Amino acid sequence: MASALEKAGILVEALPYIKKFYGKTVVIKYGGHAMVDCALKKAVLTDVVLMKYVGMRPVIVHGGGPEITAMLKKLGIESRFIGGLRVTDDETMEIVEMVLVGKINKEIVSMLNAFGGRAVGLSGKDAGLLQAARKLGRARRPDGTVEMVDIGHVGEITRVDPDIASTLIDQGYIPVISPVAVGADGESYNINADYVAGELAVALGAEKLVILTDVEGILADRRDRDSLISVIHAPEIPDLVARGVIEGGMIPKVECCTRALSGGVGTTHILDGRVAHSILLEVFTDKGIGTMVVG
Amino acid sequence: MASALEKAGILVEALPYIKKFYGKTVVIKYGGHAMVDCALKKAVLTDVVLMKYVGMRPVIVHGGGPEITAMLKKLGIESRFIGGLRVTDDETMEIVEMVLVGKINKEIVSMLNAFGGRAVGLSGKDAGLLQAARKLGRARRPDGTVEMVDIGHVGEITRVDPDIASTLIDQGYIPVISPVAVGADGESYNINADYVAGELAVALGAEKLVILTDVEGILADRRDRDSLISVIHAPEIPDLVARGVIEGGMIPKVECCTRALSGGVGTTHILDGRVAHSILLEVFTDKGIGTMVVG
Amino acid sequence: MASALEKAGILVEALPYIKKFYGKTVVIKYGGHAMVDCALKKAVLTDVVLMKYVGMRPVIVHGGGPEITAMLKKLGIESRFIGGLRVTDDETMEIVEMVLVGKINKEIVSMLNAFGGRAVGLSGKDAGLLQAARKLGRARRPDGTVEMVDIGHVGEITRVDPDIASTLIDQGYIPVISPVAVGADGESYNINADYVAGELAVALGAEKLVILTDVEGILADRRDRDSLISVIHAPEIPDLVARGVIEGGMIPKVECCTRALSGGVGTTHILDGRVAHSILLEVFTDKGIGTMVVG
Amino acid sequence: MASALEKAGILVEALPYIKKFYGKTVVIKYGGHAMVDCALKKAVLTDVVLMKYVGMRPVIVHGGGPEITAMLKKLGIESRFIGGLRVTDDETMEIVEMVLVGKINKEIVSMLNAFGGRAVGLSGKDAGLLQAARKLGRARRPDGTVEMVDIGHVGEITRVDPDIASTLIDQGYIPVISPVAVGADGESYNINADYVAGELAVALGAEKLVILTDVEGILADRRDRDSLISVIHAPEIPDLVARGVIEGGMIPKVECCTRALSGGVGTTHILDGRVAHSILLEVFTDKGIGTMVVG
Amino acid sequence: MASALEKAGILVEALPYIKKFYGKTVVIKYGGHAMVDCALKKAVLTDVVLMKYVGMRPVIVHGGGPEITAMLKKLGIESRFIGGLRVTDDETMEIVEMVLVGKINKEIVSMLNAFGGRAVGLSGKDAGLLQAARKLGRARRPDGTVEMVDIGHVGEITRVDPDIASTLIDQGYIPVISPVAVGADGESYNINADYVAGELAVALGAEKLVILTDVEGILADRRDRDSLISVIHAPEIPDLVARGVIEGGMIPKVECCTRALSGGVGTTHILDGRVAHSILLEVFTDKGIGTMVVG
Amino acid sequence: MASALEKAGILVEALPYIKKFYGKTVVIKYGGHAMVDCALKKAVLTDVVLMKYVGMRPVIVHGGGPEITAMLKKLGIESRFIGGLRVTDDETMEIVEMVLVGKINKEIVSMLNAFGGRAVGLSGKDAGLLQAARKLGRARRPDGTVEMVDIGHVGEITRVDPDIASTLIDQGYIPVISPVAVGADGESYNINADYVAGELAVALGAEKLVILTDVEGILADRRDRDSLISVIHAPEIPDLVARGVIEGGMIPKVECCTRALSGGVGTTHILDGRVAHSILLEVFTDKGIGTMVVG
Repeated sequence: MASALEKAGILVEALPYIKKFYGKTVVIKYGGHAMVDCALKKAVLTDVVLMKYVGMRPVIVHGGGPEITAMLKKLGIESRFIGGLRVTDDETMEIVEMVLVGKINKEIVSMLNAFGGRAVGLSGKDAGLLQAARKLGRARRPDGTVEMVDIGHVGEITRVDPDIASTLIDQGYIPVISPVAVGADGESYNINADYVAGELAVALGAEKLVILTDVEGILADRRDRDSLISVIHAPEIPDLVARGVIEGGMIPKVECCTRALSGGVGTTHILDGRVAHSILLEVFTDKGIGTMVVG
Repeated sequence: MASALEKAGILVEALPYIKKFYGKTVVIKYGGHAMVDCALKKAVLTDVVLMKYVGMRPVIVHGGGPEITAMLKKLGIESRFIGGLRVTDDETMEIVEMVLVGKINKEIVSMLNAFGGRAVGLSGKDAGLLQAARKLGRARRPDGTVEMVDIGHVGEITRVDPDIASTLIDQGYIPVISPVAVGADGESYNINADYVAGELAVALGAEKLVILTDVEGILADRRDRDSLISVIHAPEIPDLVARGVIEGGMIPKVECCTRALSGGVGTTHILDGRVAHSILLEVFTDKGIGTMVVG
Repeated sequence: MASALEKAGILVEALPYIKKFYGKTVVIKYGGHAMVDCALKKAVLTDVVLMKYVGMRPVIVHGGGPEITAMLKKLGIESRFIGGLRVTDDETMEIVEMVLVGKINKEIVSMLNAFGGRAVGLSGKDAGLLQAARKLGRARRPDGTVEMVDIGHVGEITRVDPDIASTLIDQGYIPVISPVAVGADGESYNINADYVAGELAVALGAEKLVILTDVEGILADRRDRDSLISVIHAPEIPDLVARGVIEGGMIPKVECCTRALSGGVGTTHILDGRVAHSILLEVFTDKGIGTMVVG
Repeated sequence: MASALEKAGILVEALPYIKKFYGKTVVIKYGGHAMVDCALKKAVLTDVVLMKYVGMRPVIVHGGGPEITAMLKKLGIESRFIGGLRVTDDETMEIVEMVLVGKINKEIVSMLNAFGGRAVGLSGKDAGLLQAARKLGRARRPDGTVEMVDIGHVGEITRVDPDIASTLIDQGYIPVISPVAVGADGESYNINADYVAGELAVALGAEKLVILTDVEGILADRRDRDSLISVIHAPEIPDLVARGVIEGGMIPKVECCTRALSGGVGTTHILDGRVAHSILLEVFTDKGIGTMVVG
Repeated sequence: MASALEKAGILVEALPYIKKFYGKTVVIKYGGHAMVDCALKKAVLTDVVLMKYVGMRPVIVHGGGPEITAMLKKLGIESRFIGGLRVTDDETMEIVEMVLVGKINKEIVSMLNAFGGRAVGLSGKDAGLLQAARKLGRARRPDGTVEMVDIGHVGEITRVDPDIASTLIDQGYIPVISPVAVGADGESYNINADYVAGELAVALGAEKLVILTDVEGILADRRDRDSLISVIHAPEIPDLVARGVIEGGMIPKVECCTRALSGGVGTTHILDGRVAHSILLEVFTDKGIGTMVVG
Repeated sequence: MASALEKAGILVEALPYIKKFYGKTVVIKYGGHAMVDCALKKAVLTDVVLMKYVGMRPVIVHGGGPEITAMLKKLGIESRFIGGLRVTDDETMEIVEMVLVGKINKEIVSMLNAFGGRAVGLSGKDAGLLQAARKLGRARRPDGTVEMVDIGHVGEITRVDPDIASTLIDQGYIPVISPVAVGADGESYNINADYVAGELAVALGAEKLVILTDVEGILADRRDRDSLISVIHAPEIPDLVARGVIEGGMIPKVECCTRALSGGVGTTHILDGRVAHSILLEVFTDKGIGTMVVG
């Protein structure tokens, strides 16, 4: 009995957080390790279904990761990267889209449905959800100068029409969105999922943007896991970048956060996706985990 | 961290129960010790608010208990009982109604609102929610025979018009109902709160009827607290009554349950209101607690 | 036949007034003699039901009056007044609330329902309708100076959340409101019903505020009942107060009217509640009765 | 004051009738003297607007009468009647329709609007409200036998599509309907307005059908105005016809009533349209006037 | 087969135009030759039904023309004109209204219904759609000066209450409107149908106003049918009038267009009603026909 | 002009068909040559958008065809067929799903959106649209007997939950559905698209099921293209199969049709997808094309 009572107590502890986020939209960028490890996958998607049932309006934007590389490799297509972006020719784009929309998205949708959610997968192409334009890559010349070069089907968002996502949310569905868009030129474009999550959070008037990563959050000292910075205020960011505290792949993530904040999103979070139920811990406890970026 | 993770795990464990009762109406007869003890009161009403937030539609019917007796005593009005029912003359009825509707109901409403619910108190008189007729008391004559005698403003339900309760529930409010009704004769009647809860559960198409009592449930052997009968099927009841397992004040409670079941209510529960969060434990765990009566 | 024809004629005469107030909210402060006398009670509440049926949206706010005093007396609780306000300790407040919410409110609701209305009683505590803060009393010291003193559970309104009242009105119910509120401190407060009526009229966007009193209205010469002032414009009030034409208990009533007017209420009325059907006469005839205060 | 109070009393007396017919549809066949006399016209249409404002759903079906004959005469078109029905050739039909739809209907609509209603005129042609087939006339041959002969654009109803009328009623409008229909053959047909009223009452699920006539109602003894039969039960009718109590133009009116009753209409009434406010007297008094035909 | 394929191709060609006007309101002034010639009548009204089915919201305002004159002649009423406007005494007005509302309107409604539309005829009197004031005629004195004289029931629009029209459109009906209005004086007024169409287009927020005439449109050289001006910009109009290119009956039509444009209507069109399906050609082809007046 | 007029005439000719199918659901199985040829693709999808705009509710179910085989080949996965069904191991299923959902579906969606539709791609996995169970293949043993063998992820439909499709249709979207489902076992299954189309037509209460094929329809004499059978009544089918008129791949298509008919679908059609705009010709002309199967 004791144990049951403790359980009840914990449910009751969650009540203030449930009230706080009741009816609020939360956009989750789902990627990295949490998408590979089976137990983590289950943990993340259960969290999302739970959020739905306690009255939140979760939206998932997923990335691609290792499955794309694996499929390209199987097909003998070599990947080249410029400025951290994959050079994406027609053949590669076809594979990227198939893996994102036809494989990863469907796995997520199936698991959510198995856990009791009512998930619907969307590509940015569906009902014109995302429109994109070609993005150039920053190639570094041997002399150290930077040249902008065409890297193919890599896009940046030019327009978000959130109607289909809103409609589905309002009808009780959980939208699961692949970061693929169509250009005004009719071409397909692959877009960084962090950016898609950030722009959707703005377009949907989200309360929270959660980006799952494979690090603890932002560390004051990269070598010291205990130096996690819990809260960063947007104005501090330039200094943190200058000092190298925020660097590499974290820079665009933080950029998404600040854009989302300036677009009206309440709070943004960079969480450690390697920790089971990290979303739940962030949403349902006072301490939160990872790094919160606020306006 | 460990502890936080455990908490997350417990929330996740609740998910199947949340799904199961999502959108379902649960009528709770609130009375006895759980209405007197401050900590229990808080526990019960937090449970109700939590139920609301995770998508259920809770309705509270409260009893009166010691506060009525205390007020009558203060006023020097002596209470006489016939067949277990208080003889309720005009003066007594006035006090009974004032205490139920003007004191107890309002305390419950205020606490629910303080915990984040949006509660609205109702008397059975409001919008014709409950209509009643005079109920006679069973007086035992010296010779052992039973005589039906007028015991005043004690009523039994003749009609339920659940519109006002449904309207409030649909608009997101938690109705808190006092067991007072008006008769076709224009008189006020006090009604047993167990019966009110049972009839309302039927009228509202409830999934669950929960009756809080001051005992563990129904015990196979009254002297042995470990002999709790977890599940009783309606057809077994006559035999249990005949054998004295169900007796005294438990008989009308079980009768309410069977009436509710035959009126379409899914399951009915007799819970120990002295255990904190007993409703939560019943709803959110597999084992349940107390005695469940099913059809 | 003649008589029937005359009746028809009178119904037809009412048409312009029915059209004028169709769909309009009218808040009625119900108190004084009209709440004590049986025939008057019936007349007032029939008027309210009639208003409902011809398309108006009536709301009743009731006072307490003699029944509170009677109950306190029965309980041997002595009443002390400071600056015209009852010193309301915890015990007194409990009684005040029980009488208002559990007795008077329910009698009004029952009568309205018996006359064919669909009335629902509300306390200011229900769904956070009224929030209050402690109000100090003006005690006059022996030396004639005034001191503000704590007089207990006497409150003034700090916030009105009219949602529950609007919801009920929109669904066709007549809300009957007791002037009791909860404070941010969790305490119960008794509030002057005139003020409650005035603030609700503003919050509900009412067309009319009607205050029933035990006088003819405002008399130019208090000793001359024929000196009734039919219309007062808000700017004239300070002068009328200075000249003693408006004095005593009439001052707060007039203050409620001016506040309501400045909050957007169309017209406000101080009517003689001792005249049967005074509300009807005000609403359905050109001459009106009592004193109308306009902006 | 006395007089004002009496007026209030009369309004209050109307309350039970208002409650009784709240939300109920009442179809009124408007014709005869009440359509010619200016004061009566005003009385009838004020009654209808009043009915609307006190929550009923009135529908008017009007006849033609003297204005058609006058216009035909002006144009030098002679009218011939067979079996009581006007032989209606193409030219006559054109005039009949213009007078009904373009003159009488519009006068009624304008007056209702002037009195504060929101009236919309409809012909049976609008949105396919009424479909008709050619009706033959019963010509009596010199030898006394009866022959069915073509009398032109005289129709009987074959189908009612009440959608447009219901839509308008639901949106708060008062439909005013001219008894003209289109045939499957594309031709225009004039239909007896009593029949239109009866069929519409059925199609709209009306509570009441009121037929205004130029007699007191059905008299037991035609020569004795005091012999009015207040209530006739449908089964008594054949006998009353056989005995000549119901005869001539009253026969089809009574037939409309019985058809309406068997189609689910609550009560049907044959009223004296020469009495001002006869509809109001019927609806708002206990005694009623004229003859009521019930099932 | 070839031919069927060509047909399919033409349907496909229409798609961009269907998309362009989907959900848009188009007000059509229907008059002149297109109302007289049987084949043209059929063509215009089929076009309107087609517009409805492909998602537009057409509204028809019809004129009167020869039928009024014919009926007046039949009745021996002579028509006098002052400044191009018919002097309309009471008797004439009665005939005008009967012909417009009771004959022409009904013919249009019947044909639209026969073609599968759901049309409802309205006079400006219905539900207060149009309110008018008396318009004076410009009488030219023998000495060449102009005098404003009373010409009877000729009105100009003072208020449009488009509620009834919007309601009908929203419910899927096609409103067909006769240019008759009621004045504040209770009198009936005949109004120029072009003006009615223009004002309604503004009040209904129409995308297009189409005026059917009996000329090709506006010709640069009146004697040369090939000199049609396809597009006129509003600012060019005064010059075109000054040069006599726009003259006579075309001036008020152009004036209606410019008023409509300044009231927010997208484009306005003066079309040749003598060409079958001219509306369809205007709406469903790139070239358009007739003269388009734009802001 | 002549040509424009002819175009108008053709639009007008389409009106009866537009009326006939207004608001009706049409499920189109899209596959074969029409999915490969660029011009045909454009023709089919324009037809669908046109259907949407003229008020129908089209739904597309697409097949896979050559693209799946091409991708499998690229990856060096050999395809084996048993009883006409592809043996689908885990690796193959992954590719099948990726090509269907991530490539073909997205191309269709993008084209529909480019043509002005608002299309949303769905897999049978989305929101539990399709549930399937493993289907065995009919392997023919050397001795001619048939053995049922496991052929992997080939499924047959066990449950359709059309909610997500209905929701999207009601909100104005065109659902484009890939024939992939999830099993109760959590596995992915590839399902014959004809069957998916048939079952969806039933579940959505469709008026029409259209199956695009690569033949003219059903020919009485396979060698004579002019021997097309325009209409087949369901009861004739067994005889036609027995006589070999319906044979091979046509048998399951006809079976889908008869199942759909018995599930309430109005008419079913086997069309030649190699003819441009064949859907339009079927829907918008009297003759229709291909073979219609009716109940």
